[in-house]
Amino acid sequence: MTRASLSGGAAARRRLCGAALGLALARPGAVLAQGDPLPSWADGPAKARIVAFVRAATTVGSRGFVPPEERIAVFDNDGTLWTERPVYVQLFFVIDRVRALAPRHPEWRQTQPFRAALEGDLAALAAGGERALLQLVMATHAGTTPQEFRQIVRDWLAVARHPRFGRPFTELVYQPMLELLAYLRAHGFKTYIVSGGGIEFLRAWAEPVYGIPPEQVVGSSIKTRYELREGVPTSVRLPEIDFIDDGAGKPVGIERHIGRRPVAAFGNSDGDFQMLEWVSAGAGPRLALLVHHDDAEREYAYDRDSPVGRLARGLDEGPRRGWTIVSMKNDWRTIFPPAER
Amino acid sequence: MTRASLSGGAAARRRLCGAALGLALARPGAVLAQGDPLPSWADGPAKARIVAFVRAATTVGSRGFVPPEERIAVFDNDGTLWTERPVYVQLFFVIDRVRALAPRHPEWRQTQPFRAALEGDLAALAAGGERALLQLVMATHAGTTPQEFRQIVRDWLAVARHPRFGRPFTELVYQPMLELLAYLRAHGFKTYIVSGGGIEFLRAWAEPVYGIPPEQVVGSSIKTRYELREGVPTSVRLPEIDFIDDGAGKPVGIERHIGRRPVAAFGNSDGDFQMLEWVSAGAGPRLALLVHHDDAEREYAYDRDSPVGRLARGLDEGPRRGWTIVSMKNDWRTIFPPAER
Repeated sequence: MTRASLSGGAAARRRLCGAALGLALARPGAVLAQGDPLPSWADGPAKARIVAFVRAATTVGSRGFVPPEERIAVFDNDGTLWTERPVYVQLFFVIDRVRALAPRHPEWRQTQPFRAALEGDLAALAAGGERALLQLVMATHAGTTPQEFRQIVRDWLAVARHPRFGRPFTELVYQPMLELLAYLRAHGFKTYIVSGGGIEFLRAWAEPVYGIPPEQVVGSSIKTRYELREGVPTSVRLPEIDFIDDGAGKPVGIERHIGRRPVAAFGNSDGDFQMLEWVSAGAGPRLALLVHHDDAEREYAYDRDSPVGRLARGLDEGPRRGWTIVSMKNDWRTIFPPAER
Repeated sequence: MTRASLSGGAAARRRLCGAALGLALARPGAVLAQGDPLPSWADGPAKARIVAFVRAATTVGSRGFVPPEERIAVFDNDGTLWTERPVYVQLFFVIDRVRALAPRHPEWRQTQPFRAALEGDLAALAAGGERALLQLVMATHAGTTPQEFRQIVRDWLAVARHPRFGRPFTELVYQPMLELLAYLRAHGFKTYIVSGGGIEFLRAWAEPVYGIPPEQVVGSSIKTRYELREGVPTSVRLPEIDFIDDGAGKPVGIERHIGRRPVAAFGNSDGDFQMLEWVSAGAGPRLALLVHHDDAEREYAYDRDSPVGRLARGLDEGPRRGWTIVSMKNDWRTIFPPAER
């Protein structure tokens, strides 16, 4: 991790809706002085595993050496990089969009999942999973261009607040994962998001918040069409699902966008199972990690019975597959970056 | 352009089926000595336009400055980076695959476009365009994994020869465009292929030949499915079209994969029209270039009436849209890299 990369990331972060800087980003001198690139990670098996993997990957002649062009790391977003409780952040966004557009759609009062959105029935919406979310995205966003859509998202992020923490959602990203992203990039890894969430929703803010550019975001999508609108070349979002990037769709999305098998994968739910399975099955050294939400005090505690971010198979099979289970409670010293003053 | 980047490119090229090095790559000392990063481009308006664009794009404070993260350049492949005559290279490949698989498909003798492929009727196949090509790709490649498919492509490229030039197809890439790719990358541009051809066909060889990694290849595609085959995680290619990356599909493919509007686009046919239109319509400085095949002696001469690589609208409207028409005959000193001895 270099001072230059930290400063660049910090500058970019400051630009987005005044989100707070990450701990490491706010104290680059401290980080460099103590020589620990992952200060928010407690010493323990998870941190040791990450550091050993990266050291081997970047040591020529090491058995775990990974050629620079193969250093691809993929990250789930919801529950892995930022909080997904009480429901996916994108669902809060969609509810507000449904409300804004409802006067033009009186029929939504009688139709699910629109009715649940209008009534703020989070439980009903959460039960519908990412498919229901995408259905709402389709209905509320067809007709906009990707550029218009991203602006709507940014405008919303600037004012929306999390119901429990009262902070902007872009401040409810995980400080240890920000450090991990920066640590990997400082060692030549290309970092990608591979999310069940909407690709354009993510692209609206992933670059300033995570340092991940639009071309390194893989997500669920609706179709777009290219056309001339009053002579102006325009890309228009259509009310038709293009791709669901969840579960067994994640390896497909990786093949489509990246075209080679990553060597590191980070997730938190069984929706990430196949992604970790696909990455782990490659030849050579691999790093696969699942964030276990076991910290009700500082964030949330959920796994097997959760409608959002259910984690059961990963807990059962992960360890014997060589996957690292990260305890938020024990492995993370800090959860979120400090709030902006 | 640095010596290091040239050497790296050369080393990579040597690895692929013994393809010849590019002129610039074989003589880096000469290139550096004369200070001309585009030695195969004749002095003239096309070269001047390219150099002026890149100089402005990389000069802080210039009106034409482009921030590093926006330096995205997209290249068509067939007819822009390598020869597409007498038919698309991928069509030669597909014909050989149809023949190899024909014993298992007696019905192909009676069905087009398979019959034309078996009879080597290039005119009939060319008339079908890239859609017919993709239909054949689907039928002949379903069931393989992307990795298996790429190996089949590489094995074929190692032995196949162009009917007129008698050289491997990977040696029939355009030397001036190899120099242009290296020149742009040396100035911080990310170079992408955006091709009507098959994405996995391109990914098999684009990295060693062009220096373009799999994740920067956008192309037409068939669907894939993730599954376990005897317990082994596998990505399987299905006989179903996923996406046609041609004409108005190119801006859609760009949105999907790159997620931002490129500032430079290079094509050669009306299949690239919308890509150049989309790129040119962005705010700020843009570079749009069409290769005009007007050199029957050294390569081929074709435009308005050609079933492959038809160029009519681009010639008519390009100049007044500010697009640069490159004459192969007058603007290119060399067409292909020298043959390997």
